[in-house]
Parts: sequence; structure tokens; C-alpha cells
Amino acid sequence: MLRDVVIDLLKERGVELSEIADIVYTLQSPFNPDLTMAECLESVERVMDKREVHHTVLTGIALDVAAENDALPEPLLSIIKTDEPLYGVDESLAVSIASMYGTIGFTSFGYLDKNKMGLMARLDDKSTGEVHCFLDDLVAGIASAASARLAHGRKKD
Amino acid sequence: MLRDVVIDLLKERGVELSEIADIVYTLQSPFNPDLTMAECLESVERVMDKREVHHTVLTGIALDVAAENDALPEPLLSIIKTDEPLYGVDESLAVSIASMYGTIGFTSFGYLDKNKMGLMARLDDKSTGEVHCFLDDLVAGIASAASARLAHGRKKD
Amino acid sequence: MLRDVVIDLLKERGVELSEIADIVYTLQSPFNPDLTMAECLESVERVMDKREVHHTVLTGIALDVAAENDALPEPLLSIIKTDEPLYGVDESLAVSIASMYGTIGFTSFGYLDKNKMGLMARLDDKSTGEVHCFLDDLVAGIASAASARLAHGRKKD
Amino acid sequence: MLRDVVIDLLKERGVELSEIADIVYTLQSPFNPDLTMAECLESVERVMDKREVHHTVLTGIALDVAAENDALPEPLLSIIKTDEPLYGVDESLAVSIASMYGTIGFTSFGYLDKNKMGLMARLDDKSTGEVHCFLDDLVAGIASAASARLAHGRKKD
Repeated sequence: MLRDVVIDLLKERGVELSEIADIVYTLQSPFNPDLTMAECLESVERVMDKREVHHTVLTGIALDVAAENDALPEPLLSIIKTDEPLYGVDESLAVSIASMYGTIGFTSFGYLDKNKMGLMARLDDKSTGEVHCFLDDLVAGIASAASARLAHGRKKD
Repeated sequence: MLRDVVIDLLKERGVELSEIADIVYTLQSPFNPDLTMAECLESVERVMDKREVHHTVLTGIALDVAAENDALPEPLLSIIKTDEPLYGVDESLAVSIASMYGTIGFTSFGYLDKNKMGLMARLDDKSTGEVHCFLDDLVAGIASAASARLAHGRKKD
Repeated sequence: MLRDVVIDLLKERGVELSEIADIVYTLQSPFNPDLTMAECLESVERVMDKREVHHTVLTGIALDVAAENDALPEPLLSIIKTDEPLYGVDESLAVSIASMYGTIGFTSFGYLDKNKMGLMARLDDKSTGEVHCFLDDLVAGIASAASARLAHGRKKD
Repeated sequence: MLRDVVIDLLKERGVELSEIADIVYTLQSPFNPDLTMAECLESVERVMDKREVHHTVLTGIALDVAAENDALPEPLLSIIKTDEPLYGVDESLAVSIASMYGTIGFTSFGYLDKNKMGLMARLDDKSTGEVHCFLDDLVAGIASAASARLAHGRKKD
């Protein structure tokens, strides 16, 4: 099943859904003091049901991995390896995830993009040799979507 | 000229372009230590040349003013007067301004939306009887656009 | 309930959900020969469950009605009454509905915007004295969302 | 210069700017009977000045080429090679180009996506062994942007 493939791939690249749920909790708990971590994880799980999310994650990580393997043509290779500040394709991709839950999704995304917290700060560390140009934004997109979903009190989708 | 009508209307509602330039400076100076306030104001002026900006500002302020005058039907009137947190039309409108300069624009917009600074904090003050449900987001949209424009080193547009 | 208020308002402005379902059928039946009108209407009903849709429809129709009553300041009044071709706020609002179901939603929206069919052609008729600058785009947004929802085989949301 | 690299890459993949200008002419000439092909080409040239366009084109074509060379992991490889209808990452990327010139840009993009004309029909031909999952949308994005630019009567940007 595509959903499982994508969640396994995230794990392989160092991302557990529970860590995304931590970011959701940080975003959403100021507005909802009764919020539990279990609800945050459940919301991340629901976002991970969406085919658009699967496709976007597969594509972004494929670009990260290709860059790690020096398997992209220049000048794109260097742009992605250094996560060049004016390169915005990673954000464009990821914001399409955040936007599925309305405007609250994309404002949270913008906030996370400037305040890389927890998992995102780790992925943004350029000293490891790993390339996560896309992955940190994908995580922000999923967290923003899951947070907006909670804000809207969605039960099913 | 439509541009002048819009700038006058912003003034009437308490917004000077120089205050928007202050926000641009706060956003962009960490990335560019040589940035001057004059460059920030110039960038705001260029954003104010765009017809899409004129139309969006006219529409948003018309809704604020209609709400201030109790001239909207319920339940929309109460939603806009209280700037209900789940109402996202104000952000939808304003992000269309920010997006004209690429992804840097909309990530800055999301950041400002959560960190209302300077002018934006003043507009967000609900105790005055004034309604600025749309205006604070319009200011964030213009500031984000002007900041992204500087980041891209645009000279002309 | 907000949902009922919004559906009643659409009716008052001349829009039945069944007519939106007709547009959904036209969009989606080429890809799914077994599609029934009942499924199209069901999909429109599900889109009408979303709070973002309620807020956007309330706002757009309030602007149409205000323009019909000459209750907007110039130059905005004339821009909305004539549905000036370069005025894009109506599309900006409505595309936020279409985007909730991913990219299929917004490409359908662009298509409908240029091929105003059925109900949309009627709303676009400028000879009636009625103002539907926003409403025709809102209908396109809802139809595009409902069509994308069917394309993705969504059951619940 | 990055701009030249990108234009050369488009040529290598079978796309001349003059063919994009043909699409612009088809989109925009109904609204402007005096429009010349030279103005359409000039507008495409100006869109090609933008860094966001460079980055997006480099990324999309890199994915097409990697798919052509079977150098992507499954299931992404098959999704891109068959341009699976529910895969929307290609449209997400390309619409970010179209959006830089406001809402007219993205409605034209949606229209082109459903009415693949000229060059786009050729790129969409799956019988050649070439993979243009992203390229046909990139062409639509550039054409929509150049068309919206003309609609707004932009001189400089």
C-alpha cells in the first residue's frame, strides 16, 4: 500500500510520525490546553492517508536522495545540496500539503519555515552530509496540515 | 490614479507606507546587514504599483469598513467584527499579494501572521471599536511581498 | 447551523446544489463512465460541510449584494458591478475552495473559469441587473472541489 | 548565466520559446486583436528572467530525465513515466510560475492543462519513449504567466 511505502521511506530518512506530532502539539496546544499527544499523532496519521501527501513526499525525498548521490545535473545539484536560500521549489511542494486544510495550514507552514523546531532543526543541520532540502519542508507541511485539521475540529478527514 | 486612491485609503485607515517599510526592514535586515530603510520603502512603493494589490486592498478595506458600520448580514458581520480565528478569507486574500514574489513571500506572510509586529499589533487591537480583520493581513501581505522582492534583488518590478 | 444558512443563501441568489452537481458531472463523467448524478450531488454536499467553504461563500455573496445595492465605495463598486476582467479577487477567493482537494481542483477551476457552463453562464449574464461577480466563481470553486473529490475516490471527507 | 542554462535545457528537451509564444498568442489574442507574435515572444522572454522560473524548470526537467533513465525509485518511477492522472506534483510546481502574475495566470494554467494545444499536445504524446510529465506543465506555466503579464499591460517585469 502506497501509504505504508511512504511512512517507511520517512523512517528511513530519519522521520518518525511521533516527531511530527510533537511539532503539531507545539503549534496547536496554545489554542487548546486539553490537547493530547495522542490526538496530535492521530491527526498526523489522517494527513498521511491522503494521496497528494504520498506523491509529494515521494517526489521530495527522491530529489534529496538523488542530490545525496550526486545524481542530479548541475547547477541543480549544488542548489539542492546547499539548500540555497532563494530556491523555493521545496516550499512550493510542501505548501501544497499544508493548503489542503485551508489558510490556517499555510500560515503555520510559513511560521515553521522561519522557526525550525525539534525534528526540523535536526534535518536542517548541513554538517551531516545528508541532504534534506525537501524533507524539512515536507515535515513542516505535514505538521501544519495536521495542526490545521485539529483547529477545524475535523473528525473524519 | 488607482494607486493614489489606494495609498490614501490606507492612510485613512491608519497605515503609512513607512510603517510597512519598518516591517520589511525587520524581516529582511537579518539577511542583508547593509539594507537601508530607504530601500525598504522603495520596495513597498514598487509593490504598491501592482494592480492586483490595488484590487485586493480596496476589497479588504471595504469589508472592514462595512463591518465597522454594521452594514453586513449576520453571521458574517460577527465573524469579521471579532476576527474569528477560523475565518481565513482575510489570509486567503492577502497571501495572493505575498505570492506574487514567489515562495519567500508566502513563508514570510505565515511568519508575520503569527508574530504580529509594530503596525500589525496595533491593527490587531480589538479594544478600539475599529475593525481591521482584513487590514492587518493586507499589511502583512504587502510587507512580505516587498521583503521577498528585496531578497530576489529585483530592480524593476 | 452555518451550513444551512449558506445553502439557503445560495438558493436565494439562484443557485441549487443540484445545478452545481450538473457541472461536476460534466467535468468528471469523461473519466468515469459509471458516474451517477446522485454521486455528484453527494460530493457537492460533502464539500458544503467545510467551514472554509461557508466563510468564503458568505463573504463573496456579501460583496455581490453590497454591489447590487450600490453600498460599496467607488472605484470598487464599478469594478465589481462590471466584473472587470483584470479584477481577480473573486478568483482568488474561490480557488481557495478548489485547492482543498489538491491540484486537480485548481486545474478544473481554471478550465471552468474560461468555459462557463450551465448555471455559470446564467450567473455571468450581465443584462439582468443582478451582480454575480463572486458567485459564478464560488460555484466554479465548489464544482471543482466536488469533482476533484470524486477523482480521488474520497469516501469520507 | 542561469537564464541561458535554462533556455538551452528547454531547447534540448524540444521546447523553443517561440513555440511557447504561440500558446501565449492563442490565449491572449481574443482579448487584444492588435497583439503581435513579437510581443508574445517578448513576454515569454521577460518571464524567463525570473529566478523562480529557472529553479522550477531545472527541477521539473531533472525529474523527467531521471524517469527517462529509470533512475528514480519505485513507485515514483512508474507514476512519473505514465504521468498518472492523480499525480499532481507537476501541476503544483508549474502553477507557482503562473501565480507570479496573479489570478489570470492560474486560471489560464487550468485551461491549458485541460486543452493541451500545439507544443503541449506534442509533449503529452506518450508513444515516443520520452518522459515529459513535468515539461508540459512547465510550458503551460510559462505561457500562462506570459499571457497574464500581457493582460496586465506590464512593461518592465
